[in-house]
Amino acid sequence: MYFECQYRVPYADTDQMGVVYYANYLVYFERGRTEMFRSAGLPYSELEKQGLFLPVSEAYCKYQASAHYDDLLTFRSWIAELGRVRVRIATEVRRADEVLVSGHVVLGCVNSERRIVRFSPEIIAVCRKFVAEGGEA
Amino acid sequence: MYFECQYRVPYADTDQMGVVYYANYLVYFERGRTEMFRSAGLPYSELEKQGLFLPVSEAYCKYQASAHYDDLLTFRSWIAELGRVRVRIATEVRRADEVLVSGHVVLGCVNSERRIVRFSPEIIAVCRKFVAEGGEA
Amino acid sequence: MYFECQYRVPYADTDQMGVVYYANYLVYFERGRTEMFRSAGLPYSELEKQGLFLPVSEAYCKYQASAHYDDLLTFRSWIAELGRVRVRIATEVRRADEVLVSGHVVLGCVNSERRIVRFSPEIIAVCRKFVAEGGEA
Amino acid sequence: MYFECQYRVPYADTDQMGVVYYANYLVYFERGRTEMFRSAGLPYSELEKQGLFLPVSEAYCKYQASAHYDDLLTFRSWIAELGRVRVRIATEVRRADEVLVSGHVVLGCVNSERRIVRFSPEIIAVCRKFVAEGGEA
Repeated sequence: MYFECQYRVPYADTDQMGVVYYANYLVYFERGRTEMFRSAGLPYSELEKQGLFLPVSEAYCKYQASAHYDDLLTFRSWIAELGRVRVRIATEVRRADEVLVSGHVVLGCVNSERRIVRFSPEIIAVCRKFVAEGGEA
Repeated sequence: MYFECQYRVPYADTDQMGVVYYANYLVYFERGRTEMFRSAGLPYSELEKQGLFLPVSEAYCKYQASAHYDDLLTFRSWIAELGRVRVRIATEVRRADEVLVSGHVVLGCVNSERRIVRFSPEIIAVCRKFVAEGGEA
Repeated sequence: MYFECQYRVPYADTDQMGVVYYANYLVYFERGRTEMFRSAGLPYSELEKQGLFLPVSEAYCKYQASAHYDDLLTFRSWIAELGRVRVRIATEVRRADEVLVSGHVVLGCVNSERRIVRFSPEIIAVCRKFVAEGGEA
Repeated sequence: MYFECQYRVPYADTDQMGVVYYANYLVYFERGRTEMFRSAGLPYSELEKQGLFLPVSEAYCKYQASAHYDDLLTFRSWIAELGRVRVRIATEVRRADEVLVSGHVVLGCVNSERRIVRFSPEIIAVCRKFVAEGGEA
Protein backbone atom coordinates (compact mmCIF):
# COMPACT_ATOMS: atom_id res chain seq x y z
CA MET A 1 0.00 0.00 0.00
CA TYR A 2 1.18 3.49 -0.78
CA PHE A 3 0.58 6.51 1.37
CA GLU A 4 0.03 9.93 -0.18
CA CYS A 5 -0.15 13.43 1.23
CA GLN A 6 -0.01 16.89 -0.29
CA TYR A 7 2.12 19.98 0.16
CA ARG A 8 2.11 23.45 -1.32
CA VAL A 9 5.56 24.88 -2.18
CA PRO A 10 6.26 28.19 -0.41
CA TYR A 11 8.64 30.89 -1.65
CA ALA A 12 10.95 29.85 1.18
CA ASP A 13 11.71 26.53 -0.55
CA THR A 14 12.79 28.03 -3.89
CA ASP A 15 16.24 29.19 -4.95
CA GLN A 16 17.48 31.64 -7.54
CA MET A 17 17.24 29.04 -10.31
CA GLY A 18 13.48 29.42 -9.79
CA VAL A 19 13.02 25.86 -8.54
CA VAL A 20 12.85 24.05 -5.21
CA TYR A 21 16.33 23.89 -3.68
CA TYR A 22 17.61 20.32 -3.69
CA ALA A 23 18.01 19.87 0.08
CA ASN A 24 14.33 20.60 0.67
CA TYR A 25 13.32 17.27 -0.82
CA LEU A 26 14.74 15.58 2.28
CA VAL A 27 12.35 17.72 4.32
CA TYR A 28 9.58 16.58 1.98
CA PHE A 29 10.58 12.96 2.53
CA GLU A 30 10.30 13.61 6.28
CA ARG A 31 6.74 14.93 5.81
CA GLY A 32 5.83 11.92 3.70
CA ARG A 33 6.97 9.30 6.20
CA THR A 34 5.62 11.23 9.20
CA GLU A 35 2.13 11.42 7.75
CA MET A 36 2.34 7.77 6.69
CA PHE A 37 3.03 6.74 10.29
CA ARG A 38 0.31 9.07 11.61
CA SER A 39 -2.22 7.65 9.16
CA ALA A 40 -1.57 4.19 10.63
CA GLY A 41 -2.28 5.45 14.14
CA LEU A 42 1.35 5.76 15.26
CA PRO A 43 2.51 9.38 15.16
CA TYR A 44 6.28 9.66 15.36
CA SER A 45 5.84 12.05 18.30
CA GLU A 46 4.26 9.12 20.20
CA LEU A 47 7.27 6.95 19.50
CA GLU A 48 9.54 9.59 20.98
CA LYS A 49 7.36 9.69 24.10
CA GLN A 50 7.95 5.92 24.37
CA GLY A 51 11.69 6.61 24.19
CA LEU A 52 12.19 5.35 20.64
CA PHE A 53 13.88 7.41 17.94
CA LEU A 54 14.36 6.60 14.26
CA PRO A 55 17.54 8.34 13.11
CA VAL A 56 18.35 8.45 9.41
CA SER A 57 21.43 6.47 8.42
CA GLU A 58 21.27 6.97 4.64
CA ALA A 59 19.43 9.22 2.24
CA TYR A 60 19.27 9.21 -1.55
CA CYS A 61 17.53 11.51 -4.03
CA LYS A 62 17.23 11.33 -7.78
CA TYR A 63 16.18 14.62 -9.35
CA GLN A 64 14.31 14.15 -12.62
CA ALA A 65 12.37 17.39 -12.97
CA SER A 66 11.95 20.56 -10.95
CA ALA A 67 9.21 21.59 -8.57
CA HIS A 68 8.27 25.27 -8.62
CA TYR A 69 6.83 27.89 -6.33
CA ASP A 70 3.18 27.30 -5.49
CA ASP A 71 3.10 23.80 -6.99
CA LEU A 72 0.76 21.47 -5.17
CA LEU A 73 2.94 18.40 -4.72
CA THR A 74 2.03 14.86 -3.77
CA PHE A 75 4.41 12.85 -1.62
CA ARG A 76 3.91 9.13 -2.19
CA SER A 77 5.67 6.97 0.42
CA TRP A 78 6.02 3.27 1.05
CA ILE A 79 8.22 0.74 2.80
CA ALA A 80 10.76 -0.56 0.31
CA GLU A 81 12.63 -2.90 2.69
CA LEU A 82 11.93 -3.95 6.25
CA GLY A 83 14.44 -5.59 8.55
CA ARG A 84 14.71 -5.96 12.33
CA VAL A 85 16.92 -2.98 12.89
CA ARG A 86 16.60 -1.00 9.68
CA VAL A 87 13.85 0.04 7.34
CA ARG A 88 14.10 1.67 3.92
CA ILE A 89 11.31 4.12 3.17
CA ALA A 90 10.89 5.28 -0.42
CA THR A 91 9.24 8.54 -1.39
CA GLU A 92 8.27 10.01 -4.73
CA VAL A 93 7.56 13.71 -5.08
CA ARG A 94 4.97 14.18 -7.80
CA ARG A 95 3.17 17.01 -9.51
CA ALA A 96 -0.05 15.50 -10.83
CA ASP A 97 1.17 12.33 -12.62
CA GLU A 98 4.75 13.41 -13.11
CA VAL A 99 7.45 12.07 -10.77
CA LEU A 100 9.82 14.98 -10.10
CA VAL A 101 12.10 13.48 -7.49
CA SER A 102 12.33 9.98 -6.10
CA GLY A 103 14.48 8.65 -3.33
CA HIS A 104 14.64 6.89 -0.02
CA VAL A 105 15.95 7.05 3.48
CA VAL A 106 17.20 4.23 5.67
CA LEU A 107 16.14 4.51 9.31
CA GLY A 108 17.43 2.65 12.33
CA CYS A 109 15.98 2.61 15.82
CA VAL A 110 17.66 3.85 19.01
CA ASN A 111 16.46 4.18 22.59
CA SER A 112 16.79 7.25 24.75
CA GLU A 113 20.43 6.35 25.54
CA ARG A 114 21.05 6.35 21.78
CA ARG A 115 21.65 2.58 21.76
CA ILE A 116 20.55 0.64 18.70
CA VAL A 117 17.48 -1.46 19.44
CA ARG A 118 15.11 -3.60 17.36
CA PHE A 119 11.96 -2.02 16.05
CA SER A 120 9.04 -2.50 18.43
CA PRO A 121 6.21 -4.84 17.28
CA GLU A 122 4.05 -1.72 16.90
CA ILE A 123 6.52 -0.17 14.45
CA ILE A 124 6.82 -3.44 12.52
CA ALA A 125 3.04 -3.70 12.25
CA VAL A 126 2.74 -0.18 10.86
CA CYS A 127 5.55 -0.70 8.38
CA ARG A 128 4.01 -3.93 7.12
CA LYS A 129 0.91 -2.04 6.05
CA PHE A 130 2.93 0.02 3.65
CA VAL A 131 5.31 -2.54 2.22
CA ALA A 132 5.22 -2.10 -1.54
CA GLU A 133 7.38 -2.25 -4.59
CA GLY A 134 7.97 0.83 -6.57
CA GLY A 135 10.07 2.81 -8.99
CA GLU A 136 13.81 2.90 -8.74
CA ALA A 137 13.78 4.84 -5.51
CA MET B 1 32.22 48.54 20.57
CA TYR B 2 30.90 46.76 17.52
CA PHE B 3 31.51 43.17 16.63
CA GLU B 4 31.87 42.09 13.02
CA CYS B 5 32.03 38.72 11.32
CA GLN B 6 31.67 37.57 7.74
CA TYR B 7 29.47 35.14 5.88
CA ARG B 8 29.27 33.92 2.29
CA VAL B 9 25.72 33.53 0.89
CA PRO B 10 25.04 29.98 -0.38
CA TYR B 11 22.49 29.05 -3.04
CA ALA B 12 20.41 27.54 -0.23
CA ASP B 13 19.66 31.03 1.15
CA THR B 14 18.30 32.51 -2.08
CA ASP B 15 14.76 32.42 -3.42
CA GLN B 16 13.27 32.71 -6.88
CA MET B 17 13.38 36.50 -6.79
CA GLY B 18 17.16 35.99 -6.99
CA VAL B 19 17.81 37.42 -3.52
CA VAL B 20 18.29 36.12 0.01
CA TYR B 21 14.90 34.97 1.39
CA TYR B 22 13.76 37.30 4.14
CA ALA B 23 13.62 34.78 7.00
CA ASN B 24 17.30 33.95 6.58
CA TYR B 25 18.33 37.30 8.03
CA LEU B 26 17.18 36.06 11.43
CA VAL B 27 19.63 33.18 11.01
CA TYR B 28 22.27 35.78 10.12
CA PHE B 29 21.43 37.74 13.27
CA GLU B 30 21.94 34.50 15.24
CA ARG B 31 25.41 34.10 13.69
CA GLY B 32 26.26 37.70 14.49
CA ARG B 33 25.40 37.53 18.18
CA THR B 34 26.87 34.03 18.62
CA GLU B 35 30.25 35.09 17.28
CA MET B 36 30.08 38.31 19.34
CA PHE B 37 29.68 36.26 22.53
CA ARG B 38 32.40 33.82 21.47
CA SER B 39 34.81 36.67 20.74
CA ALA B 40 34.37 37.83 24.34
CA GLY B 41 35.27 34.39 25.66
CA LEU B 42 31.72 33.25 26.42
CA PRO B 43 30.44 30.88 23.72
CA TYR B 44 26.70 30.45 23.90
CA SER B 45 27.25 26.68 24.03
CA GLU B 46 29.05 27.24 27.36
CA LEU B 47 26.05 29.13 28.73
CA GLU B 48 23.81 26.19 27.89
CA LYS B 49 26.18 23.85 29.72
CA GLN B 50 25.74 26.14 32.76
CA GLY B 51 21.97 25.71 32.38
CA LEU B 52 21.28 29.18 31.02
CA PHE B 53 19.34 29.77 27.81
CA LEU B 54 18.64 33.05 26.04
CA PRO B 55 15.33 32.67 24.18
CA VAL B 56 14.29 35.35 21.73
CA SER B 57 11.20 37.31 22.78
CA GLU B 58 11.10 39.80 19.89
CA ALA B 59 12.69 40.16 16.48
CA TYR B 60 12.59 43.01 14.00
CA CYS B 61 14.09 43.40 10.51
CA LYS B 62 14.14 46.35 8.16
CA TYR B 63 14.97 45.35 4.59
CA GLN B 64 16.64 48.17 2.67
CA ALA B 65 18.44 46.35 -0.13
CA SER B 66 18.90 42.76 -1.21
CA ALA B 67 21.76 40.38 -0.61
CA HIS B 68 22.57 38.01 -3.47
CA TYR B 69 24.08 34.61 -4.00
CA ASP B 70 27.80 34.48 -3.26
CA ASP B 71 27.89 37.92 -1.64
CA LEU B 72 30.42 38.18 1.14
CA LEU B 73 28.37 39.80 3.88
CA THR B 74 29.46 41.46 7.09
CA PHE B 75 27.30 41.09 10.19
CA ARG B 76 27.86 44.01 12.58
CA SER B 77 26.36 43.41 16.02
CA TRP B 78 26.18 45.40 19.24
CA ILE B 79 24.17 45.68 22.44
CA ALA B 80 21.53 48.36 21.95
CA GLU B 81 19.90 48.07 25.38
CA LEU B 82 20.88 46.12 28.48
CA GLY B 83 18.58 45.40 31.40
CA ARG B 84 18.57 42.82 34.19
CA VAL B 85 16.31 40.36 32.47
CA ARG B 86 16.35 41.44 28.85
CA VAL B 87 18.90 42.60 26.34
CA ARG B 88 18.38 44.08 22.90
CA ILE B 89 21.02 43.09 20.36
CA ALA B 90 21.15 45.03 17.10
CA THR B 91 22.64 43.64 13.91
CA GLU B 92 23.34 45.19 10.54
CA VAL B 93 23.91 43.04 7.49
CA ARG B 94 26.29 44.84 5.16
CA ARG B 95 27.88 44.29 1.78
CA ALA B 96 31.02 46.41 1.84
CA ASP B 97 29.80 49.80 3.13
CA GLU B 98 26.16 49.34 2.24
CA VAL B 99 23.67 48.38 4.95
CA LEU B 100 21.26 45.88 3.38
CA VAL B 101 19.21 44.85 6.38
CA SER B 102 19.18 46.13 9.94
CA GLY B 103 17.26 44.86 12.90
CA HIS B 104 17.39 43.55 16.41
CA VAL B 105 16.32 40.78 18.69
CA VAL B 106 15.32 40.96 22.33
CA LEU B 107 16.60 38.10 24.46
CA GLY B 108 15.60 37.05 27.94
CA CYS B 109 17.27 34.49 30.18
CA VAL B 110 15.78 31.23 31.47
CA ASN B 111 17.19 28.36 33.49
CA SER B 112 16.91 24.69 32.65
CA GLU B 113 13.36 24.60 34.10
CA ARG B 114 12.50 27.39 31.63
CA ARG B 115 12.00 29.89 34.51
CA ILE B 116 12.98 33.49 33.86
CA VAL B 117 16.16 34.43 35.73
CA ARG B 118 18.44 37.46 35.77
CA PHE B 119 21.44 37.50 33.49
CA SER B 120 24.53 36.12 35.23
CA PRO B 121 27.33 38.60 36.04
CA GLU B 122 29.36 36.91 33.30
CA ILE B 123 26.70 37.62 30.69
CA ILE B 124 26.36 41.22 31.87
CA ALA B 125 30.12 41.70 31.63
CA VAL B 126 30.23 40.43 28.06
CA CYS B 127 27.27 42.56 27.00
CA ARG B 128 28.81 45.69 28.49
CA LYS B 129 31.79 45.34 26.15
CA PHE B 130 29.53 45.69 23.16
CA VAL B 131 27.15 48.40 24.32
CA ALA B 132 26.98 50.91 21.48
CA GLU B 133 24.62 53.23 19.74
CA GLY B 134 23.79 52.64 16.16
CA GLY B 135 21.46 53.09 13.22
CA GLU B 136 17.74 52.73 13.59
CA ALA B 137 17.93 49.02 14.29
CA MET C 1 -12.29 39.46 8.14
CA TYR C 2 -9.58 37.09 9.24
CA PHE C 3 -8.08 34.34 7.18
CA GLU C 4 -6.97 31.09 8.78
CA CYS C 5 -5.02 28.11 7.54
CA GLN C 6 -3.30 25.20 9.23
CA TYR C 7 0.18 23.76 9.30
CA ARG C 8 1.81 20.72 10.90
CA VAL C 9 5.29 21.34 12.41
CA PRO C 10 7.93 18.99 10.93
CA TYR C 11 11.13 17.94 12.67
CA ALA C 12 12.97 20.19 10.22
CA ASP C 13 11.52 23.31 11.90
CA THR C 14 12.66 22.48 15.43
CA ASP C 15 15.96 23.29 17.12
CA GLN C 16 17.87 21.75 19.99
CA MET C 17 15.84 23.69 22.56
CA GLY C 18 13.01 21.37 21.44
CA VAL C 19 10.92 24.19 19.96
CA VAL C 20 10.36 25.79 16.56
CA TYR C 21 13.42 27.86 15.62
CA TYR C 22 12.57 31.55 15.66
CA ALA C 23 13.30 32.35 11.99
CA ASN C 24 10.75 29.77 10.83
CA TYR C 25 7.86 31.97 11.97
CA LEU C 26 8.65 34.30 9.07
CA VAL C 27 8.15 31.32 6.76
CA TYR C 28 4.85 30.67 8.56
CA PHE C 29 3.84 34.30 8.00
CA GLU C 30 4.56 33.79 4.30
CA ARG C 31 2.26 30.76 4.24
CA GLY C 32 -0.47 32.69 6.03
CA ARG C 33 -0.50 35.63 3.63
CA THR C 34 -0.10 33.44 0.54
CA GLU C 35 -3.13 31.33 1.40
CA MET C 36 -5.09 34.49 2.30
CA PHE C 37 -4.47 35.89 -1.20
CA ARG C 38 -5.25 32.54 -2.82
CA SER C 39 -8.53 32.25 -0.89
CA ALA C 40 -9.59 35.59 -2.42
CA GLY C 41 -8.91 34.33 -5.93
CA LEU C 42 -5.56 36.07 -6.42
CA PRO C 43 -2.68 33.62 -5.96
CA TYR C 44 0.63 35.41 -5.48
CA SER C 45 2.03 33.32 -8.35
CA GLU C 46 -0.54 35.04 -10.64
CA LEU C 47 0.70 38.45 -9.54
CA GLU C 48 4.23 37.50 -10.50
CA LYS C 49 2.99 36.40 -13.93
CA GLN C 50 1.51 39.90 -14.28
CA GLY C 51 4.95 41.33 -13.44
CA LEU C 52 4.10 42.48 -9.92
CA PHE C 53 6.17 41.51 -6.90
CA LEU C 54 5.52 42.26 -3.23
CA PRO C 55 8.89 42.45 -1.48
CA VAL C 56 9.00 42.61 2.31
CA SER C 57 10.33 45.89 3.70
CA GLU C 58 9.84 45.18 7.42
CA ALA C 59 9.12 42.18 9.59
CA TYR C 60 8.34 41.92 13.29
CA CYS C 61 7.73 38.93 15.56
CA LYS C 62 6.76 38.75 19.20
CA TYR C 63 7.40 35.33 20.72
CA GLN C 64 5.04 34.58 23.60
CA ALA C 65 5.11 30.78 23.78
CA SER C 66 6.80 27.97 21.88
CA ALA C 67 5.47 25.76 19.14
CA HIS C 68 6.65 22.15 19.22
CA TYR C 69 7.24 19.28 16.84
CA ASP C 70 4.05 17.86 15.38
CA ASP C 71 1.85 20.70 16.68
CA LEU C 72 -1.03 21.49 14.39
CA LEU C 73 -0.79 25.28 14.17
CA THR C 74 -3.28 27.82 12.90
CA PHE C 75 -2.02 30.91 11.07
CA ARG C 76 -4.53 33.76 11.37
CA SER C 77 -3.78 36.63 8.98
CA TRP C 78 -5.38 39.98 8.25
CA ILE C 79 -4.61 43.38 6.75
CA ALA C 80 -3.62 45.71 9.57
CA GLU C 81 -2.92 48.80 7.44
CA LEU C 82 -3.48 49.48 3.75
CA GLY C 83 -1.89 52.33 1.80
CA ARG C 84 -1.24 52.97 -1.87
CA VAL C 85 2.29 51.66 -1.90
CA ARG C 86 2.53 49.65 1.29
CA VAL C 87 0.43 47.19 3.20
CA ARG C 88 0.93 45.79 6.67
CA ILE C 89 -0.18 42.18 7.08
CA ALA C 90 -0.50 40.82 10.60
CA THR C 91 -0.29 37.13 11.44
CA GLU C 92 -0.87 35.20 14.63
CA VAL C 93 0.47 31.70 15.05
CA ARG C 94 -1.89 29.78 17.32
CA ARG C 95 -2.14 26.32 18.85
CA ALA C 96 -5.85 25.85 19.54
CA ASP C 97 -6.83 29.09 21.34
CA GLU C 98 -3.36 30.06 22.45
CA VAL C 99 -1.45 32.74 20.56
CA LEU C 100 2.18 31.59 20.43
CA VAL C 101 3.72 34.21 18.16
CA SER C 102 2.25 37.36 16.66
CA GLY C 103 3.79 39.75 14.23
CA HIS C 104 3.52 41.48 10.92
CA VAL C 105 5.28 42.21 7.69
CA VAL C 106 5.18 45.37 5.59
CA LEU C 107 5.06 44.75 1.85
CA GLY C 108 5.60 47.17 -1.01
CA CYS C 109 4.97 46.60 -4.70
CA VAL C 110 7.54 46.60 -7.50
CA ASN C 111 7.32 45.86 -11.21
CA SER C 112 9.61 43.56 -13.14
CA GLU C 113 12.28 46.31 -13.35
CA ARG C 114 12.17 46.43 -9.54
CA ARG C 115 10.64 49.96 -9.60
CA ILE C 116 8.17 50.84 -6.86
CA VAL C 117 4.63 51.01 -8.21
CA ARG C 118 1.18 51.44 -6.65
CA PHE C 119 -0.80 48.34 -5.80
CA SER C 120 -3.07 47.30 -8.67
CA PRO C 121 -6.86 47.73 -8.12
CA GLU C 122 -7.06 43.94 -7.95
CA ILE C 123 -4.58 43.81 -5.06
CA ILE C 124 -6.39 46.63 -3.25
CA ALA C 125 -9.71 44.81 -3.64
CA VAL C 126 -8.31 41.61 -2.14
CA CYS C 127 -6.67 43.43 0.74
CA ARG C 128 -9.89 45.28 1.59
CA LYS C 129 -11.64 41.97 2.22
CA PHE C 130 -9.25 41.19 5.02
CA VAL C 131 -8.88 44.57 6.70
CA ALA C 132 -9.34 43.93 10.40
CA GLU C 133 -8.13 45.08 13.74
CA GLY C 134 -6.31 42.70 15.94
CA GLY C 135 -3.92 42.04 18.79
CA GLU C 136 -0.72 43.98 19.15
CA ALA C 137 0.83 42.50 16.04
CA MET D 1 43.79 16.76 -4.43
CA TYR D 2 41.23 17.39 -1.74
CA PHE D 3 39.69 20.70 -0.94
CA GLU D 4 38.79 21.63 2.62
CA CYS D 5 36.84 24.46 4.17
CA GLN D 6 35.33 25.07 7.56
CA TYR D 7 31.91 25.85 8.93
CA ARG D 8 30.49 26.58 12.37
CA VAL D 9 27.12 24.97 13.14
CA PRO D 10 24.45 27.53 14.10
CA TYR D 11 21.40 26.81 16.25
CA ALA D 12 19.35 27.12 13.08
CA ASP D 13 20.80 23.85 11.75
CA THR D 14 19.92 21.71 14.79
CA ASP D 15 16.71 19.82 15.51
CA GLN D 16 15.06 18.63 18.69
CA MET D 17 17.20 15.49 18.80
CA GLY D 18 20.02 17.94 19.60
CA VAL D 19 21.90 17.26 16.36
CA VAL D 20 22.20 18.76 12.89
CA TYR D 21 19.01 17.99 10.92
CA TYR D 22 19.75 15.54 8.13
CA ALA D 23 18.77 17.75 5.16
CA ASN D 24 21.31 20.39 6.16
CA TYR D 25 24.19 18.17 5.05
CA LEU D 26 23.13 18.77 1.46
CA VAL D 27 23.57 22.48 2.14
CA TYR D 28 26.99 21.67 3.58
CA PHE D 29 27.87 19.72 0.43
CA GLU D 30 26.88 22.81 -1.57
CA ARG D 31 29.28 24.94 0.50
CA GLY D 32 32.05 22.42 0.04
CA ARG D 33 31.83 22.26 -3.76
CA THR D 34 31.28 26.01 -4.11
CA GLU D 35 34.42 26.85 -2.17
CA MET D 36 36.34 24.16 -4.08
CA PHE D 37 35.44 25.83 -7.38
CA ARG D 38 36.21 29.29 -6.00
CA SER D 39 39.61 28.13 -4.74
CA ALA D 40 40.46 27.11 -8.31
CA GLY D 41 39.59 30.56 -9.62
CA LEU D 42 36.17 29.66 -11.03
CA PRO D 43 33.39 30.83 -8.68
CA TYR D 44 30.07 29.21 -9.51
CA SER D 45 28.54 32.70 -9.72
CA GLU D 46 30.89 33.34 -12.69
CA LEU D 47 29.64 30.24 -14.43
CA GLU D 48 26.08 31.46 -14.12
CA LYS D 49 27.11 34.79 -15.65
CA GLN D 50 28.44 32.78 -18.60
CA GLY D 51 25.03 31.11 -18.87
CA LEU D 52 26.09 27.75 -17.48
CA PHE D 53 24.28 26.05 -14.61
CA LEU D 54 25.15 22.83 -12.81
CA PRO D 55 21.90 21.28 -11.56
CA VAL D 56 22.06 18.34 -9.18
CA SER D 57 20.74 15.09 -10.63
CA GLU D 58 21.49 12.80 -7.69
CA ALA D 59 22.46 13.17 -4.05
CA TYR D 60 23.48 10.59 -1.49
CA CYS D 61 24.35 10.89 2.21
CA LYS D 62 25.56 8.32 4.69
CA TYR D 63 25.14 9.43 8.28
CA GLN D 64 27.70 7.84 10.59
CA ALA D 65 27.76 10.20 13.55
CA SER D 66 26.04 13.43 14.53
CA ALA D 67 27.24 16.99 14.28
CA HIS D 68 26.18 19.29 17.12
CA TYR D 69 25.53 22.94 17.74
CA ASP D 70 28.66 25.07 17.63
CA ASP D 71 30.83 22.29 16.20
CA LEU D 72 33.53 23.57 13.90
CA LEU D 73 33.16 21.24 10.95
CA THR D 74 35.48 20.58 8.03
CA PHE D 75 34.01 19.87 4.60
CA ARG D 76 36.43 17.84 2.48
CA SER D 77 35.45 17.70 -1.19
CA TRP D 78 36.87 16.09 -4.28
CA ILE D 79 35.92 14.93 -7.76
CA ALA D 80 35.06 11.26 -7.58
CA GLU D 81 34.14 10.80 -11.27
CA LEU D 82 34.42 13.10 -14.23
CA GLY D 83 32.61 12.65 -17.54
CA ARG D 84 31.69 14.94 -20.40
CA VAL D 85 28.20 15.72 -19.20
CA ARG D 86 28.21 14.66 -15.58
CA VAL D 87 30.53 14.92 -12.62
CA ARG D 88 30.31 13.23 -9.24
CA ILE D 89 31.56 15.34 -6.36
CA ALA D 90 32.15 13.63 -3.02
CA THR D 91 32.12 15.42 0.29
CA GLU D 92 32.97 14.33 3.81
CA VAL D 93 31.78 16.30 6.80
CA ARG D 94 34.34 15.93 9.57
CA ARG D 95 34.79 17.09 13.13
CA ALA D 96 38.53 17.00 13.71
CA ASP D 97 39.54 13.54 12.41
CA GLU D 98 36.14 11.94 12.65
CA VAL D 99 34.02 11.54 9.51
CA LEU D 100 30.43 12.27 10.54
CA VAL D 101 28.69 12.20 7.19
CA SER D 102 29.93 11.30 3.75
CA GLY D 103 28.16 11.49 0.45
CA HIS D 104 28.14 12.83 -3.04
CA VAL D 105 26.15 14.69 -5.61
CA VAL D 106 26.03 14.18 -9.36
CA LEU D 107 25.91 17.39 -11.38
CA GLY D 108 25.08 17.93 -15.01
CA CYS D 109 25.47 21.07 -17.06
CA VAL D 110 22.72 23.09 -18.74
CA ASN D 111 22.69 26.36 -20.63
CA SER D 112 20.35 29.27 -20.03
CA GLU D 113 17.60 27.54 -22.04
CA ARG D 114 17.97 24.59 -19.64
CA ARG D 115 19.37 22.37 -22.42
CA ILE D 116 21.98 19.81 -21.45
CA VAL D 117 25.44 20.80 -22.70
CA ARG D 118 28.97 19.48 -22.24
CA PHE D 119 31.10 20.93 -19.49
CA SER D 120 33.19 23.84 -20.75
CA PRO D 121 36.99 23.28 -20.95
CA GLU D 122 37.31 25.67 -18.01
CA ILE D 123 35.04 23.50 -15.84
CA ILE D 124 36.90 20.34 -16.90
CA ALA D 125 40.22 21.94 -16.03
CA VAL D 126 39.04 22.90 -12.55
CA CYS D 127 37.55 19.48 -11.90
CA ARG D 128 40.77 17.74 -12.95
CA LYS D 129 42.63 19.50 -10.15
CA PHE D 130 40.48 17.83 -7.57
CA VAL D 131 40.14 14.34 -8.98
CA ALA D 132 40.88 12.00 -6.10
CA GLU D 133 39.87 8.70 -4.66
CA GLY D 134 38.29 8.57 -1.29
CA GLY D 135 36.13 6.81 1.25
CA GLU D 136 32.92 5.13 0.27
CA ALA D 137 31.20 8.37 -0.61
